Amino acid sequence: METTTTPKLPAVFSPGFFKLYFKGMGQVMFQGNIWTGIFFLAGIFYGAYEAHMPAVAWGAVVGTFMSTLTGYLLKYPAEKGLDGLWGFNGILVGCALPTFIGNVPLMWLAIVIFSSMTTWVMVGLNHLLAPYKVSSFTFPFVLTTWFVLLAARIMHGLPDSGLGAPELPGNFSTAFDTSFKSLVIYWLRGISQVFLINSWVTGVFFLVGLFISSRWAAIWAAIGSALALCIAILYQCNGGDIANGLFGFSPVLTAIALGTTFYHVNWRTAIWALLGIFATVFIQAGMDTFFAPVGIPTLTGPFCVATWLFLWPHLNLDKKILQQG
Amino acid sequence: METTTTPKLPAVFSPGFFKLYFKGMGQVMFQGNIWTGIFFLAGIFYGAYEAHMPAVAWGAVVGTFMSTLTGYLLKYPAEKGLDGLWGFNGILVGCALPTFIGNVPLMWLAIVIFSSMTTWVMVGLNHLLAPYKVSSFTFPFVLTTWFVLLAARIMHGLPDSGLGAPELPGNFSTAFDTSFKSLVIYWLRGISQVFLINSWVTGVFFLVGLFISSRWAAIWAAIGSALALCIAILYQCNGGDIANGLFGFSPVLTAIALGTTFYHVNWRTAIWALLGIFATVFIQAGMDTFFAPVGIPTLTGPFCVATWLFLWPHLNLDKKILQQG
Amino acid sequence: METTTTPKLPAVFSPGFFKLYFKGMGQVMFQGNIWTGIFFLAGIFYGAYEAHMPAVAWGAVVGTFMSTLTGYLLKYPAEKGLDGLWGFNGILVGCALPTFIGNVPLMWLAIVIFSSMTTWVMVGLNHLLAPYKVSSFTFPFVLTTWFVLLAARIMHGLPDSGLGAPELPGNFSTAFDTSFKSLVIYWLRGISQVFLINSWVTGVFFLVGLFISSRWAAIWAAIGSALALCIAILYQCNGGDIANGLFGFSPVLTAIALGTTFYHVNWRTAIWALLGIFATVFIQAGMDTFFAPVGIPTLTGPFCVATWLFLWPHLNLDKKILQQG
Repeated sequence: METTTTPKLPAVFSPGFFKLYFKGMGQVMFQGNIWTGIFFLAGIFYGAYEAHMPAVAWGAVVGTFMSTLTGYLLKYPAEKGLDGLWGFNGILVGCALPTFIGNVPLMWLAIVIFSSMTTWVMVGLNHLLAPYKVSSFTFPFVLTTWFVLLAARIMHGLPDSGLGAPELPGNFSTAFDTSFKSLVIYWLRGISQVFLINSWVTGVFFLVGLFISSRWAAIWAAIGSALALCIAILYQCNGGDIANGLFGFSPVLTAIALGTTFYHVNWRTAIWALLGIFATVFIQAGMDTFFAPVGIPTLTGPFCVATWLFLWPHLNLDKKILQQG
Repeated sequence: METTTTPKLPAVFSPGFFKLYFKGMGQVMFQGNIWTGIFFLAGIFYGAYEAHMPAVAWGAVVGTFMSTLTGYLLKYPAEKGLDGLWGFNGILVGCALPTFIGNVPLMWLAIVIFSSMTTWVMVGLNHLLAPYKVSSFTFPFVLTTWFVLLAARIMHGLPDSGLGAPELPGNFSTAFDTSFKSLVIYWLRGISQVFLINSWVTGVFFLVGLFISSRWAAIWAAIGSALALCIAILYQCNGGDIANGLFGFSPVLTAIALGTTFYHVNWRTAIWALLGIFATVFIQAGMDTFFAPVGIPTLTGPFCVATWLFLWPHLNLDKKILQQG
Repeated sequence: METTTTPKLPAVFSPGFFKLYFKGMGQVMFQGNIWTGIFFLAGIFYGAYEAHMPAVAWGAVVGTFMSTLTGYLLKYPAEKGLDGLWGFNGILVGCALPTFIGNVPLMWLAIVIFSSMTTWVMVGLNHLLAPYKVSSFTFPFVLTTWFVLLAARIMHGLPDSGLGAPELPGNFSTAFDTSFKSLVIYWLRGISQVFLINSWVTGVFFLVGLFISSRWAAIWAAIGSALALCIAILYQCNGGDIANGLFGFSPVLTAIALGTTFYHVNWRTAIWALLGIFATVFIQAGMDTFFAPVGIPTLTGPFCVATWLFLWPHLNLDKKILQQG
């Protein structure tokens, strides 16, 4: 007689817990790999301290913990937790709030509650998206963080010091330094900005972390940021955003998703991923304009939208098993 | 031999018709109870006449009638009508349009058509949401009224006298009177604003109406408005909005929905409802910001979004039978 | 022995290819008819050259070709292609981009990529909408073009010369010439604006093209534009928009969809279509306001939203087989 054993969650703070904790960090770029997560966190700490914003790093630590713990408390299926799927939205909430909002206790209360909330928002959105064979990606982070940042505009308790002023769109300069060295820095920043870090060193950390788990993921991340940079320059976008890697982070995620995670690697899907990167840059620029009058960032919304649009058509065609969700 | 009898609708203007008519008013707060509806309408009349806006009260009468009649004309399933589910969106359209738009004949034409429209929009949206075991709540009202109010901005035939000016978000004062008496008034106004009424007396009417139908609904309504008030004060929101109960009405609905309507009452779901109230305040503030550049109100949109986000994850867990739709 | 033959696509540039190519143009107004498509294209050429904007006409040619070719390359079901369902979104992208963006090579690159993209976005959105027995209509065009136009606001490589300035909503004049001759011109322009052409002659071309395929489609198009004109005048909308037919094009499409395409022609559905036209005008005005701060047009978004809201409620009732999708 055979019995199928349902997987069991390790105790909180046990060694097994830290495995799924770091896997959660790696899942931001679709890698359920402990070492990838450790490299990601190291890169976040480097970049956050370099920018004198330690709250971003500690927010990442707290956000991952709260959203993972929420999976335990709400008794969601253990497999998802073991794959690290409870952590990747929480870590992004933890990085985003201290980036855009002043470091006050009420901000930390918001991190605790809204990083937890990403876990059940993810489960809910995955129910909505299940018939279409895609998951919610980082959209639970995007949605909850949009609400908090919009709310911060009319809450003096959440100082919106890190947010740009609301303005009608259209004013911008295309000027930026075009030396080869600068372009390499912008390219690596595009990768680091996935976690809202503006540092080329962090970009290297992230590439190494990816490479440990999947060669193709690292290659597509590199291609995604590089091609996005070229397209943004070709279409003469905002120079400051180009220099800070802000046209790169969503295409990086689209590139990994379409180039290797959800489609098999081959020439056909490679062209598909390149088209996805092109579209993501336009969706990024479009969302930048759309949110200008309320002055909030797009976060990884452009990646979610683009990747859905490139996955929905092919419910069965040449697609691998979904890893998120 | 047994036969199952399909329920039959009473003739329009018969006594049975008025039963489902008033049930429709009660269903705004999830109570298919005639007396609840009568108390709600009484509260609306009190508050509307007190504010010298009788059109709001008569709009409620007309809106409920038109949306209910539409259910008859389009021959939608009689059970829904008998539960009052054709009325609750229509009454809100009838309250909202005279609140924000000048009292002109073209406004009444809009009430007649768009309160009717809520009935088929509800049926349509319920089809969309059926696989996820939730209904559209007050979103048919929210959606149609958003369109009318946005349209009023560029239709001189609909004077937008009751709408604030479109502006980039961020300018506001946190000042408000913090005496205990004032706080009680704000708390009750938070309940009255569910029907767009700004009157503490109306808030008492509504609490009594709820209590007649369900003790727990009244308790959760009270908790919802009180906790939302505390959170809005804690995070230093717009003082004028706090005083007018504008941070309260959506959390009131979220509280009833999560605290007693869709989950069984117990400690676990109570914590869940408290989290839902917290999230609703942030979604309220976020939507306020989002709509500032076009100058329209959120209506009960924040309640719908928050409640969906707190129901979608649990398709089967500890949830009672849906009452709306 | 019987064998069912799967339909085969004709070779690109063969006579059969041009059949489905022109059918694709006709499908913008739900007519899979070659001659309808030819009249539509003739009308577009007439209007584009009259307005000294030949790029609009050639954009239509290129856009239809690219989106049709994409159906071949991605091997989507041949039946859809033979019905012309790969062409109607692409032609609209090809008309819209040169209307709003300056005639530069980078704009043509955007036409090529984004008209192609409408084909897989259509397949994806149709998967989402399939359970609700509706298709995505022109929304793949609307969505991709919104992104490109929003992006153009912050891309100097795409001159946004044809777009109005972003502004807070509310400033407009209701003045327009009310002579009978002018009203007839506005009415015909409402029809021509379906393809973003501002010419009464083109409106006549389109009516003739419709009449060849379906008398009722022509009649409902005429009714849709006429009634929308009356409602926009009654509610005192922006006079310039009225004169340019900008309140007409979405109601024209709603009218054909509800009046004859998706419901059988009878008195009951005629009232339904008239209500749909009324609602579409409000949704048009509402979306105009909503997009004012970012300064982009609604495209045929109001038609899509209105028609969905009038089809979703009736999954089975008196509805004909869907032709799009």
